[in-house]
Amino acid sequence: MATRFIFLSFCLLFSSTLTISNAKIFPTFPSSRITPEKLSSLISNSKDSQGLYKTKYHTQILDHFNYNPQSYQTFQQRYLINDTHWGGSKNNAPIFVYTGNEGDIEWFAQNTGFMYDVAPKFKALLVFIEHRYYGKSIPYGGYKEIAYKNASTTGYLSSTQALADYASLIIDLKKNLTATDSPVVVFGGSYGGMLAAWFRLKYPHVAIGALASSAPILNFDNIVSPYSFSNIITQDFRSVSENCYKVIKGSWKQIEETAKKPGGLEKLQKAFRICKSEKNLAIESWLSTAFVYTAMTDYPTPSNFLNPLPAFPVKEMCKAIDDPKTGNDVFAKLYGAASVYYNYSGTAKCFDLNGDSDPHGLSEWGWQACTEMIMLTGGDNKDSIFEESEEDYDARARYCKEAYGVDPRPNWITTEFGGHKIGLVLKRFASNIIFFNGLRDPWSGGGVLKNISKTVLALVEKEGAHHVDLRFSTKEDPQWLKDVRRREVEIVGKWISQYFQDLAL
Amino acid sequence: MATRFIFLSFCLLFSSTLTISNAKIFPTFPSSRITPEKLSSLISNSKDSQGLYKTKYHTQILDHFNYNPQSYQTFQQRYLINDTHWGGSKNNAPIFVYTGNEGDIEWFAQNTGFMYDVAPKFKALLVFIEHRYYGKSIPYGGYKEIAYKNASTTGYLSSTQALADYASLIIDLKKNLTATDSPVVVFGGSYGGMLAAWFRLKYPHVAIGALASSAPILNFDNIVSPYSFSNIITQDFRSVSENCYKVIKGSWKQIEETAKKPGGLEKLQKAFRICKSEKNLAIESWLSTAFVYTAMTDYPTPSNFLNPLPAFPVKEMCKAIDDPKTGNDVFAKLYGAASVYYNYSGTAKCFDLNGDSDPHGLSEWGWQACTEMIMLTGGDNKDSIFEESEEDYDARARYCKEAYGVDPRPNWITTEFGGHKIGLVLKRFASNIIFFNGLRDPWSGGGVLKNISKTVLALVEKEGAHHVDLRFSTKEDPQWLKDVRRREVEIVGKWISQYFQDLAL
Repeated sequence: MATRFIFLSFCLLFSSTLTISNAKIFPTFPSSRITPEKLSSLISNSKDSQGLYKTKYHTQILDHFNYNPQSYQTFQQRYLINDTHWGGSKNNAPIFVYTGNEGDIEWFAQNTGFMYDVAPKFKALLVFIEHRYYGKSIPYGGYKEIAYKNASTTGYLSSTQALADYASLIIDLKKNLTATDSPVVVFGGSYGGMLAAWFRLKYPHVAIGALASSAPILNFDNIVSPYSFSNIITQDFRSVSENCYKVIKGSWKQIEETAKKPGGLEKLQKAFRICKSEKNLAIESWLSTAFVYTAMTDYPTPSNFLNPLPAFPVKEMCKAIDDPKTGNDVFAKLYGAASVYYNYSGTAKCFDLNGDSDPHGLSEWGWQACTEMIMLTGGDNKDSIFEESEEDYDARARYCKEAYGVDPRPNWITTEFGGHKIGLVLKRFASNIIFFNGLRDPWSGGGVLKNISKTVLALVEKEGAHHVDLRFSTKEDPQWLKDVRRREVEIVGKWISQYFQDLAL
Repeated sequence: MATRFIFLSFCLLFSSTLTISNAKIFPTFPSSRITPEKLSSLISNSKDSQGLYKTKYHTQILDHFNYNPQSYQTFQQRYLINDTHWGGSKNNAPIFVYTGNEGDIEWFAQNTGFMYDVAPKFKALLVFIEHRYYGKSIPYGGYKEIAYKNASTTGYLSSTQALADYASLIIDLKKNLTATDSPVVVFGGSYGGMLAAWFRLKYPHVAIGALASSAPILNFDNIVSPYSFSNIITQDFRSVSENCYKVIKGSWKQIEETAKKPGGLEKLQKAFRICKSEKNLAIESWLSTAFVYTAMTDYPTPSNFLNPLPAFPVKEMCKAIDDPKTGNDVFAKLYGAASVYYNYSGTAKCFDLNGDSDPHGLSEWGWQACTEMIMLTGGDNKDSIFEESEEDYDARARYCKEAYGVDPRPNWITTEFGGHKIGLVLKRFASNIIFFNGLRDPWSGGGVLKNISKTVLALVEKEGAHHVDLRFSTKEDPQWLKDVRRREVEIVGKWISQYFQDLAL
């Protein structure tokens, strides 16, 4: 999940008039150090993508909700399918669907091993549907240069359109498989988890239940505090080492002051092994990116979701910072910490701060974050591991106008999907949703953390990070993670049994 | 409700190449014999519209689901409001909202007296929201000549947009009234009832419950038989008089044969007091319109919803047909029956068949019936009171292309809102919906006629007609009607009590 990344663009946009010391620090999306080729060779905890799925395409309508001529345009929507363990339509065997999020669907399929792990038990067909405007599911004949060109063509990129895409595709697929009575369960993590939960809420006639992992559906419209995100990151680091937290907390000022001094930028460039000299050395942004994404993916086993990382990477970062060998050299400590995130493979000789390669094709999240995905997570209170700051909606709105020519609709998501008093609303409405959250994940601040009813459940794991439950299982998985997945299998199993009982009536 | 009316246009469109005998007979919308002025003076069972409501406008966004520049256009959406009995925001007093259907909202407000009748008991605020593209809620600056011009401008007329309008307006209104905790219950009849039910399903965070009266949400995608509609009309007439049914059933052929003979058209024109001679004398359509709408509004008390009518108008029609005074003169019998519907006030001296005045502003239902409201009710089996015929989807599609330049999306409504196996789907999902249906109403064939769960309920009344429960109460109301309304009040009362209990937790 990368709502915050938009603010990097914001900083860059205005940085010519700002000194680095004033630039608000926000993380960017995954590092540019890893090429797509490298990444695919590095995929850990996953099978070779060869054999994981077959690729198919569905002719999708551009605009489900209107009937003007442009609404009728179509595009090819990609989906991945694996029927290795499927029990078949004659047995009404289940269909497990991943509601794709803001990137290449292959990347999500490769990082959602849970569905592969449980498919044999349920004899489930696996389907991973790509979100419109990402990966290979690009309207306008697949031409990104048209689809991403301006608001007229990008305008059809929205969550409601995506959900309607999934409904249409699933209904059509079931018809083609003559599997209209097969129960569908949807799965998703992060934005994909939000989509899974919303899909169950809006399309109960298509999906009998949803596993929404790390779905921050409450990070909108001030339902939760805009400080929750950075508070959790702060807590992640403090829980490992108070000294580590203090060093990071103190470093921002030091970087700022160094940058101001004559020769300071050169000093920073050298300290952090930045390849090229830059006028605006966004070291703070580069560092906070590492802290944010490491906190998000603070998994108990080695992983490669955003970047290749060791097990418990926050602990590894703090190990570097607390390392007595670096003495009082704060920059050396930070460099060591950043290297855990940016250079765990050890191959990078220097770092390119403003490189913008985007191996997972996430760029259009910027558009979504400027239209409807107005997730308010930008506040840093006094004790934050980052510099104190306020959520600045107006700045975002100005940026969005300039970058995309659009005005955000900050209340739309709660108008369409709710969120305020969600317990009151869903207590006697809806069923069969699991909200999983790991409390080490900064996005858990916007998650549903309490059971709402007997079938709208919150699974909360203190040690968990961003949709850790959805990853391929490994031999090293801790007991709590095994337990979470066992519970999820149990609950999904109940939904399916109940469905078959009801169907038989 | 007037899905069938579209086929009149269809007939007219192609009538130059068809003889009257081949023209498929379908009813049109309310008679053109009543001028708006006359109608408003005739409104029976209702208070003067003066004092029933105040008129307000809300700035509404044209397209909720996309972000291209045209999406951001706005229009003025009309709503009517009555706070006479409202208990106020401090008491979280309820808000009862009518989800407007395909016409002028004043007309629906005047015909939904139930809300006025129960407002004092619940201390409820009443709000009637007009559906986009109807009445005074016209996009493009209120100019119908632009809004209705072609698919580019009419394209934003859809049920999903309308539902999102209601959500946005209600949330905004509650904010302005500082009544965010006031429970909202939605009410609607016919298409408005479909919208009320769908609104509860899609926006449970905005409405705590829905009373969906005569909402034929199952007349789509072959969920129910396309013959159900005319079967019910047939049964309505047969239940009153088998002879009446036989006379009508036999008359179609006689009209057809008469029309073919030299001087036949003149004979028909004279028999039915048609003002002008016409090349295509659509007598069959004119008559079936009367039978359909009289069956729909076969209320137990005098009424004026579509046209002014006596109590039990089907019985009155059959009285005219069975009248021994007319002997064997079938046309005289039919003329007497038609006069019950078209000339109950007795003021018309002759009838204008092709007049197309539209006092309630329903014209754009034609667009809706050509895009998404593909309600399949056109079948007449051998025993139908009408001539035997098949539902002809292809003919509709061709007509729609020609008339509006659009291709229907016949599966969209069930994709978006479900309908297939609705009991299975909603048994363990959703709550607080009443589906009322009167079995004399032909639209009850597409209604939900069985309880789905303890809180998704079907109230079915053998003697009831089209949303009779929503009408103003009268002293002459039969006991069953009083009972239905008492049950509805009871159930809505439970929803509200439960909400307040939950809110207090």
